[in-house]
Amino acid sequence: MLTTRLTRAFGIEHPIVLAPMDLVSGARLATAVTAAGGLGLIGGGYGDAEWLKREFAAAAGTRVGCGFITWSLARRPGLLDLALEHGPAAVMLSFGDPAPFADPVRSAGVPLLCQVHTLEQARRALDAGADVVVAQGGEAGGHGVGTRSTFTLVPDVADLVADRSPDTLLLGAGGVTDGRGLAAALALGADGVLVGTRFWATQEAGASARAQAHAVAADGDATVRTSVYDIVRRYDWPAEYNGRLLRNRFTDRWHGREPELDAHLPQAAAEFGAAVSAEDFDVAHLIVGEGVGLVRDIVPAGDVVRRMARDAAVRLGRGAPRKAALSG
Amino acid sequence: MLTTRLTRAFGIEHPIVLAPMDLVSGARLATAVTAAGGLGLIGGGYGDAEWLKREFAAAAGTRVGCGFITWSLARRPGLLDLALEHGPAAVMLSFGDPAPFADPVRSAGVPLLCQVHTLEQARRALDAGADVVVAQGGEAGGHGVGTRSTFTLVPDVADLVADRSPDTLLLGAGGVTDGRGLAAALALGADGVLVGTRFWATQEAGASARAQAHAVAADGDATVRTSVYDIVRRYDWPAEYNGRLLRNRFTDRWHGREPELDAHLPQAAAEFGAAVSAEDFDVAHLIVGEGVGLVRDIVPAGDVVRRMARDAAVRLGRGAPRKAALSG
Repeated sequence: MLTTRLTRAFGIEHPIVLAPMDLVSGARLATAVTAAGGLGLIGGGYGDAEWLKREFAAAAGTRVGCGFITWSLARRPGLLDLALEHGPAAVMLSFGDPAPFADPVRSAGVPLLCQVHTLEQARRALDAGADVVVAQGGEAGGHGVGTRSTFTLVPDVADLVADRSPDTLLLGAGGVTDGRGLAAALALGADGVLVGTRFWATQEAGASARAQAHAVAADGDATVRTSVYDIVRRYDWPAEYNGRLLRNRFTDRWHGREPELDAHLPQAAAEFGAAVSAEDFDVAHLIVGEGVGLVRDIVPAGDVVRRMARDAAVRLGRGAPRKAALSG
Repeated sequence: MLTTRLTRAFGIEHPIVLAPMDLVSGARLATAVTAAGGLGLIGGGYGDAEWLKREFAAAAGTRVGCGFITWSLARRPGLLDLALEHGPAAVMLSFGDPAPFADPVRSAGVPLLCQVHTLEQARRALDAGADVVVAQGGEAGGHGVGTRSTFTLVPDVADLVADRSPDTLLLGAGGVTDGRGLAAALALGADGVLVGTRFWATQEAGASARAQAHAVAADGDATVRTSVYDIVRRYDWPAEYNGRLLRNRFTDRWHGREPELDAHLPQAAAEFGAAVSAEDFDVAHLIVGEGVGLVRDIVPAGDVVRRMARDAAVRLGRGAPRKAALSG
């Protein structure tokens, strides 16, 4: 059993939180993670009120939270009220200044999770009154700053929190894919983990079977951090953010040649749109992190939670002794 | 006590190996690490025969190994014979194809350590017959490929080794700075760690007090991976390599503007040379990794070894119980 400050604060069994992946983390996945003893977060993403209402309704009766892309939420602030009306277990804010939204969340008595990618962002999250800081390294799939990595960012933020706000909790994120990753994150000073890619590759995720099969075949060298898909989608990400996803013919062609992509945008966008419809992942984007190399099967999310917790406990000397933990 | 396959294979007390940092890891530092129960490696670097002879002579009587920059060693292959004449505890090869040097090392009965930065390089290291694979993430200071991070590369390589060459040992490297990092690397599947930055910041390191004071003041956000110092030093690094070091006025000016730097090389090189002489680290390079944020004092290397091992043992449930390990 891995009892941590996180499991006690949230009344959960395992210190494992589902990353609120845009459209991927719907009610089905979030409730499966919660039912297995973790904490599920619905992915509010760029913000679609109808989708959010439907997923909260589908999750009714199971305790789940919700996450937003902060800069996008700033354009549709009503979405936060919508989420808060459902009494979420937590609200997570990523990618942008959480300060304008911190008061309504905390006034509603809902724990505020703030995702950070650098020590500087962690300082601002503490200033905003985060109850939980999620320190995510650049190995994570999807957007982030990408300049720091989980292995050093987690202890850096752990020391910052211990010094400035010792009651704030800390989740490690980015590359946490199995029990080894959970054990490592706890050893580095986290109170729990936020997991994306491994839950993306489960039966309950809002991801296509074709995309999942593609990811299962990929190894850990197969991803890249790039902005080319934000350019081709005409998304307004702040300049410091880019995203990790599978390398393919499209990234090989345009990554590092962004001005040229800008100049060819109409054609490239048409090619991209057609590839998304056809699920042609040589051109379409497939968002997973470096941990994809450790994903070798598509399983129920509950199995992921239970295996991860059990294996981590053994590695930390908290479970039944097993010879393989350190000795060979 | 952290007994692992590494401590048994090398007859050492703690699974901690000194990174063979060019000129920094001399006899003084390497023997201090070995004397404290780890394994010291002298930094052969770009290859200076006189320096190497002097350091091996100074280390006589203490078991130390030696590391080389492989592509540079290929131009001065006699240096390997020089090292092997001293009966090193190990030879480590980094940055390039180890195959041409593997036979002489192994024929001499000396364990061969191969540093890798990607899963693809790990496959080649196994093909070359490495006794120990050092999986180093991009958070490390100095040169590397920089596309993978410690948190995912270590378990990726652990699985590869288990599948293809289960007797090969694995060191985790890149961001390992304290007992948290050692515990995390072992949890991720390593048999031990290779440590650079934390040993750079010790009393026995070949680093200036002024440089060390600068690094102690830096936080973990303060580094960057760049090629600008290889350009200004006219070093012939293969295209896939760049290096992590402290950000400063020089990197702010030239990083991302490499063609412009090429065009201004004579002036930039003169400015750089003067800054190195003056120890002006606004312009001169100061090579440390992301773990620099956790370095807050300059201590004897033996203290680093002992503290790291003791704290990691506690975190892995191998030492005296301590309340802080997981609970807050």
